[in-house]
Amino acid sequence: MRDIVVFSGSAHPALARSICAHLGVRLSEVDIKRFSNDCLQVQLLANCRQRDVYIVQSLVPPTQEHLMELLLMVDAAKGASAAQVTAVIPHFAYARSDKKDASRISLGGRLVADMLATAGVNRVITMALHAPQVHGFFSVPVDHLTAIGVLADHFRGQDLTDTVVVSPDLGNAKTATQFARLLGLPVAAGSKQRKADDKVVIDAIVGDVAGKRAIVLDDEIATGGSIIELLERLKDFGSTEAAVACTHGLFAGPAVQRLQGHPMIREVVTTDTVPAPEGWPQLQVRSIATLFAEAIARSHAGESVSSLFDGVDPTHGPPPQTLPLG
Amino acid sequence: MRDIVVFSGSAHPALARSICAHLGVRLSEVDIKRFSNDCLQVQLLANCRQRDVYIVQSLVPPTQEHLMELLLMVDAAKGASAAQVTAVIPHFAYARSDKKDASRISLGGRLVADMLATAGVNRVITMALHAPQVHGFFSVPVDHLTAIGVLADHFRGQDLTDTVVVSPDLGNAKTATQFARLLGLPVAAGSKQRKADDKVVIDAIVGDVAGKRAIVLDDEIATGGSIIELLERLKDFGSTEAAVACTHGLFAGPAVQRLQGHPMIREVVTTDTVPAPEGWPQLQVRSIATLFAEAIARSHAGESVSSLFDGVDPTHGPPPQTLPLG
Amino acid sequence: MRDIVVFSGSAHPALARSICAHLGVRLSEVDIKRFSNDCLQVQLLANCRQRDVYIVQSLVPPTQEHLMELLLMVDAAKGASAAQVTAVIPHFAYARSDKKDASRISLGGRLVADMLATAGVNRVITMALHAPQVHGFFSVPVDHLTAIGVLADHFRGQDLTDTVVVSPDLGNAKTATQFARLLGLPVAAGSKQRKADDKVVIDAIVGDVAGKRAIVLDDEIATGGSIIELLERLKDFGSTEAAVACTHGLFAGPAVQRLQGHPMIREVVTTDTVPAPEGWPQLQVRSIATLFAEAIARSHAGESVSSLFDGVDPTHGPPPQTLPLG
Amino acid sequence: MRDIVVFSGSAHPALARSICAHLGVRLSEVDIKRFSNDCLQVQLLANCRQRDVYIVQSLVPPTQEHLMELLLMVDAAKGASAAQVTAVIPHFAYARSDKKDASRISLGGRLVADMLATAGVNRVITMALHAPQVHGFFSVPVDHLTAIGVLADHFRGQDLTDTVVVSPDLGNAKTATQFARLLGLPVAAGSKQRKADDKVVIDAIVGDVAGKRAIVLDDEIATGGSIIELLERLKDFGSTEAAVACTHGLFAGPAVQRLQGHPMIREVVTTDTVPAPEGWPQLQVRSIATLFAEAIARSHAGESVSSLFDGVDPTHGPPPQTLPLG
Amino acid sequence: MRDIVVFSGSAHPALARSICAHLGVRLSEVDIKRFSNDCLQVQLLANCRQRDVYIVQSLVPPTQEHLMELLLMVDAAKGASAAQVTAVIPHFAYARSDKKDASRISLGGRLVADMLATAGVNRVITMALHAPQVHGFFSVPVDHLTAIGVLADHFRGQDLTDTVVVSPDLGNAKTATQFARLLGLPVAAGSKQRKADDKVVIDAIVGDVAGKRAIVLDDEIATGGSIIELLERLKDFGSTEAAVACTHGLFAGPAVQRLQGHPMIREVVTTDTVPAPEGWPQLQVRSIATLFAEAIARSHAGESVSSLFDGVDPTHGPPPQTLPLG
Amino acid sequence: MRDIVVFSGSAHPALARSICAHLGVRLSEVDIKRFSNDCLQVQLLANCRQRDVYIVQSLVPPTQEHLMELLLMVDAAKGASAAQVTAVIPHFAYARSDKKDASRISLGGRLVADMLATAGVNRVITMALHAPQVHGFFSVPVDHLTAIGVLADHFRGQDLTDTVVVSPDLGNAKTATQFARLLGLPVAAGSKQRKADDKVVIDAIVGDVAGKRAIVLDDEIATGGSIIELLERLKDFGSTEAAVACTHGLFAGPAVQRLQGHPMIREVVTTDTVPAPEGWPQLQVRSIATLFAEAIARSHAGESVSSLFDGVDPTHGPPPQTLPLG
Repeated sequence: MRDIVVFSGSAHPALARSICAHLGVRLSEVDIKRFSNDCLQVQLLANCRQRDVYIVQSLVPPTQEHLMELLLMVDAAKGASAAQVTAVIPHFAYARSDKKDASRISLGGRLVADMLATAGVNRVITMALHAPQVHGFFSVPVDHLTAIGVLADHFRGQDLTDTVVVSPDLGNAKTATQFARLLGLPVAAGSKQRKADDKVVIDAIVGDVAGKRAIVLDDEIATGGSIIELLERLKDFGSTEAAVACTHGLFAGPAVQRLQGHPMIREVVTTDTVPAPEGWPQLQVRSIATLFAEAIARSHAGESVSSLFDGVDPTHGPPPQTLPLG
Repeated sequence: MRDIVVFSGSAHPALARSICAHLGVRLSEVDIKRFSNDCLQVQLLANCRQRDVYIVQSLVPPTQEHLMELLLMVDAAKGASAAQVTAVIPHFAYARSDKKDASRISLGGRLVADMLATAGVNRVITMALHAPQVHGFFSVPVDHLTAIGVLADHFRGQDLTDTVVVSPDLGNAKTATQFARLLGLPVAAGSKQRKADDKVVIDAIVGDVAGKRAIVLDDEIATGGSIIELLERLKDFGSTEAAVACTHGLFAGPAVQRLQGHPMIREVVTTDTVPAPEGWPQLQVRSIATLFAEAIARSHAGESVSSLFDGVDPTHGPPPQTLPLG
Repeated sequence: MRDIVVFSGSAHPALARSICAHLGVRLSEVDIKRFSNDCLQVQLLANCRQRDVYIVQSLVPPTQEHLMELLLMVDAAKGASAAQVTAVIPHFAYARSDKKDASRISLGGRLVADMLATAGVNRVITMALHAPQVHGFFSVPVDHLTAIGVLADHFRGQDLTDTVVVSPDLGNAKTATQFARLLGLPVAAGSKQRKADDKVVIDAIVGDVAGKRAIVLDDEIATGGSIIELLERLKDFGSTEAAVACTHGLFAGPAVQRLQGHPMIREVVTTDTVPAPEGWPQLQVRSIATLFAEAIARSHAGESVSSLFDGVDPTHGPPPQTLPLG
Repeated sequence: MRDIVVFSGSAHPALARSICAHLGVRLSEVDIKRFSNDCLQVQLLANCRQRDVYIVQSLVPPTQEHLMELLLMVDAAKGASAAQVTAVIPHFAYARSDKKDASRISLGGRLVADMLATAGVNRVITMALHAPQVHGFFSVPVDHLTAIGVLADHFRGQDLTDTVVVSPDLGNAKTATQFARLLGLPVAAGSKQRKADDKVVIDAIVGDVAGKRAIVLDDEIATGGSIIELLERLKDFGSTEAAVACTHGLFAGPAVQRLQGHPMIREVVTTDTVPAPEGWPQLQVRSIATLFAEAIARSHAGESVSSLFDGVDPTHGPPPQTLPLG
Repeated sequence: MRDIVVFSGSAHPALARSICAHLGVRLSEVDIKRFSNDCLQVQLLANCRQRDVYIVQSLVPPTQEHLMELLLMVDAAKGASAAQVTAVIPHFAYARSDKKDASRISLGGRLVADMLATAGVNRVITMALHAPQVHGFFSVPVDHLTAIGVLADHFRGQDLTDTVVVSPDLGNAKTATQFARLLGLPVAAGSKQRKADDKVVIDAIVGDVAGKRAIVLDDEIATGGSIIELLERLKDFGSTEAAVACTHGLFAGPAVQRLQGHPMIREVVTTDTVPAPEGWPQLQVRSIATLFAEAIARSHAGESVSSLFDGVDPTHGPPPQTLPLG
Repeated sequence: MRDIVVFSGSAHPALARSICAHLGVRLSEVDIKRFSNDCLQVQLLANCRQRDVYIVQSLVPPTQEHLMELLLMVDAAKGASAAQVTAVIPHFAYARSDKKDASRISLGGRLVADMLATAGVNRVITMALHAPQVHGFFSVPVDHLTAIGVLADHFRGQDLTDTVVVSPDLGNAKTATQFARLLGLPVAAGSKQRKADDKVVIDAIVGDVAGKRAIVLDDEIATGGSIIELLERLKDFGSTEAAVACTHGLFAGPAVQRLQGHPMIREVVTTDTVPAPEGWPQLQVRSIATLFAEAIARSHAGESVSSLFDGVDPTHGPPPQTLPLG
């Protein structure tokens, strides 16, 4: 079997080190240089020849810098005769640019997928794409992982009486439903109403939340605006408190301030697909490093990656016969 | 300006003739031959050299036959030195295969988009793709038209008091909201609940429908199962009657029987993106031929296609200052 | 060495099972689903990751359905990170669409070859392409097998006195000549004459057939029209009886009826590149499953496939020193 | 309409000048330079920007030099922002490398077709490809012209009593049949027999030639060996004399000597797809420059090229109602 | 002729406006949006259909942001059915990443060229690439302009007695030689010596500079380090004063401070391929907007761009018969 | 590990045999055939299936013949299911066509790089490309070797007192500097002056050569004109004698005669990237076969190739701590 070499860009080296620790391989060094004209250059400091090269880089701000680093690392690995180059992108931010909802706009999700292929990527491992269709933007195979098992584990030990899982958007409630099933809980969802062309509000909650404790689940929290709005509605509809869970905890701009002291919020749980924000010690971070390490190990050994998610996500295999209880 | 040549496959020649009538060009002949080993061969019977060739073919059953016809016609046009080949696909059926919701399944939407590009398509004109992300499966420019203006026109002359637009799926309610805005009506939606891994039911209606008349809007009706279920819920929630409107009226299998005599249904309205089913004289069919003809004419003349939909679909331009009244 | 996984489309599963039996591997399951809009979706039910995937599918009627199944299976295997995807196409029907013999006709052979590459095929194994040039339509490596050794074996035990091999078409007599050499027999051929633009008749036999028993050899028999015509001429020129042998025995339309009771015909021999027709128990079917299994095994092990045909087909290796006697 | 610019490589500038004369455009200059390391460089000495560029080059010996010149001229034209680059290759010599008739041999016809596309060719105009399937080796549109009309014109004024058209190879007799039809003559053909693996002889003539005068038609004459052999057989079968006609008159090696004084030969007719051999004043050369000029003019003006061959080649259009008389 | 549409990214809109003013077309609007996750999205606010779209963007800091803007604008234009998309990149910063001078380093120049092609660029117009070979990194046609004519014009009116043109690097003295010829001046150059692996110093001046006034010419000035070093050497070798001229005046980091008050420097001249630095009113900026406008106009009209540089750069045409005098 | 198979074209079989001897593998046979129309065909006479195929061919005169041989061998290997095809091109002559220094000239270096990729090359191993940027013309990985270690070895045993390394061109003096460092010697260089547009002369020597013995180092010597001119200047500046060293010793046209008896020349040293000229027994040829064999072995075993050049070329690794003494 070919050797594995893992490199990390500068977006989230702690995650890369953690993945390597689980894999039992050393994280190889990269020299990333910025010229006086602001151009980047990378040098991979470990032999790539005939090896399976994995490059770990989340597309977090400064997003363009991290994207270019990733493309240059892929280019360097391909040029160094790697047998196969896999981009490990725990947070693929451009997935949100997935449709032409106005005339003559760019379609960043497809463009970045094509750019990765041009640079020489042979395969992609990612997590929780904003829409499942984005998988189809890639011309190379994609292993699309889910964190809902990891997030559900966080709540398994807790008292879950009178608890309901709430999705901010009824339109994307499928993942919340899977998550609720893992915990044996009912599901509710916010119902969005378009007020004007540029304004969408949550004006109702579908499902019973009165007198209940909520676990709000979203794929990504950026500024936290939608979550705050949902919490207001939950309060209006009689919910008593909420835990907030998300896969990609960007917490950009005012998000930390908004969420940290919110009276409705009991706890906020996220994963380490992106680096945790500064100054928020109470934030609960569950690591997805093991999942990525296992996906790399299995894919390297030619074992099924989808079986890693048996019972978690029907995308990745048949559900187990008996559902785990919360 | 280059000449236009329009060909039609055997899927829906009546629509192609109608488009040509609006364009003021003759539909050119194609000879489609089936060999004794069931292979197809096409011969285009008009000069394509240096011309803008448009090939009209909806992907309706037998879908594989019509897809192969389309690919062979594109191949023949490219081989005959066409300046540009545009596939006009009013109903792109493979759009529903848009995500990997199980391990190792095919992604037909992306595959067919790639096959069209391989055969030599330079541009695609289509209507009401099942998900807006499917646009991003194509590597060539796509003009993505909408029929909601045409469908709204159908209802404009009617008495719309106490009427509400209902989407079967809250998750895809965006189009229904646009449609309702065109008629100055409120919107409601069915809320789907996953009962088991392979069973989804509509168990609630979000929005007020009691004592109201519904206009149910969907992009495609195949067997009609979801519509029937939605009508049951509408009845449960106090709605008095319903008109049913959809862009792609396939009405496959038991659909005609199910819908034709349904007690809740006042009328069923669809378009001619696909041929109308047999034996249903009451079915209201509004033609989208003018829209396609206009899109072809504008694209040929280098005029904006999106401006064709000003006030109809924000995808295609800014909304008008004053909303049209129903 | 990587593992082999073999899947079969629905065109000819018996052949796929037979190939697997010779290979000593289990035929893996595929779930092929048809939606209500007639679109197909496939799910491969065995792990493909890092494996050499072989997909067996003959392009027999309904040809378009089987072609699309094949393309979707290839797409699914590529998307599931297969190391290499080989399409095993015992009968590549579109090979007959190999030239532009009229203005603006499609070139199906090249188009389908390109579509296979687009879907993700890395290699093709096929048999008896209608013209040898069709090999050059593929941009991926092709192993082009021959059945003449298998067909010759059928006749080896028989009394071959006063026997002559006859090709229906002098223009394609090369294969018949190789076949005759394997049996140590002389060769003759029909000479075609174009009567009108759409009518070709066999009006002469080149070579001595008077008082002789013929073995008529063709690559494919579809409706059987040419064979019947050839038999008339053989009778006119004094031949006493004929055996008919072909690689691809489609026997479409009136073929079974025409050939089954023909007074000149002693026996009809074909192979199982395509399923045998119903209701013809006397038809002799020699299996080419061993040949395909051996080609797969050798190609997997990195052994020469051409050496499999030493002494059979000069395309695949040097001829033996001494010719085998019939 | 865009301007036409025509360049010529060094293979056959006289033909290019002749084509330009018919087109009424000036042949633009090219500077072809050979460096001391034997590498070639070309500079196109006329503006190509936004123009339709035609590059005339026959692949005659030294074939590799002329091929490389052609590729470099195409590269230069593409790099100079030509709107469209058409390779005009009256004699595409690599067409003879069209099949894998031995293990691990190169397939030069397909390779050169791919190289032309890589260099930037958008379209090809060529004549009398050795096999019609070679058309399918190109991924760009090909206009495939025929010279049989021009060659037939040569014989129209002659006394054609007791004359028969003879093809050296019954397998490729289709062109001879078309040619014979243009002159209202019967057709005959040599029948080849494989004596050993590397030796093929003509051992019979199919059709009546006794006491007749022959017009032998072939696509290409290189060393003339097959023609000489055919003439021997014609003599054996009682033919009295022969005219020899071919499209590509290479007359390589001993050909001129063999044919010039042959007792059976009345005259040899060829075209100027390749330069005429030296020292053979009696050779009849009919020019195909008008045909190429007309094909360029029509393709530039967006007119049908196939209609240029109405009545000549059914590939290019329907036959005329009444056949011209010889 | 097709219409021209010009867009500008946010790198240097003043230059784009200036180019448009010379062209006589309006600069079309672009809406560039940054999401809370730092991803960019662009919307082109003018119809692109069937038009020749030119997108003006210099790759200046923040380079990655400007590169991504450019790629997204190209993607949007292609998706909007532009007839042809030309990237106008007055300063292509990644050209300096042009060689693998260490193991496993990225080759940014080629990568960015490939990314532009992937996004949909059909042609590139750029100026003063760091090495002429970078032209060959692009798979699309490139118009490579030079500013030396513009820079020479600056000095034409001045007293040039006892003046010598000096190149900082003898290895790249070719451009300086052309520039000197335009002014009728002699040329000298710095000779670089590698002191250690990471340190290169100018240790000599080749050519006579004693008692002379220098015009130092470089393609790009970033931090100004080399220029300062060269000025020291010029002083050592007896030069009395210097004017400094460059095409790309980035003046990054300490450059303005270093150059602004330097005792040897009489004046600094640059062009507007990049925005001028703040706080340096004495900096002489000559505009290349006319050159770019003229190149766009000619390329649009199908006229030769190289003739624009007759007498300036032998790359672009033959030199004039008589040299202009300084 | 996969098996290695090595083939050689007809350009320099002695080198290929030598590489194979070092590798310990047998050079496999190739049958190269020339047809009577001057087209080439190759047949590889060893099994390539699943093997790493290396094809050794230097692009020496007749360059076009050798290039076409190489392309055909690559095509045959790819078609024979080779796992990976590496072109080993010790002298890549077309590297000199690396820039557009005139309007509408071909860019042969990039074109040939693209043609190799089209034919099926997966990787290239080459030596001493004329400019380092040419590396970036290839879309496949390139191992770019250097001969300066081998050439330095030649001089290590000699008395190097009062010796200076001289580069003919100050612009390309980087390699000479590395070479000088290996021998602990100072470096000097010729300074070129453009006399007219087509005439460049060496008019000065930068660095001290008076009374010294020179080692002139160049990458390629073709006709030897520049070397002769440099020797004249060296003599003018007081140098006493010279050794001449180069990687690619083409010695075309008058080169042997010019150099063989030159009064200033003590010895001429070259490598065997190209065959040695006839009739020059005193020419010193150092073999680079070991280097190529080692590069192949390492690349096959997945070991670093760059570490092969530690201390020789900073391109390939960090320099050693202590410099070797001459």
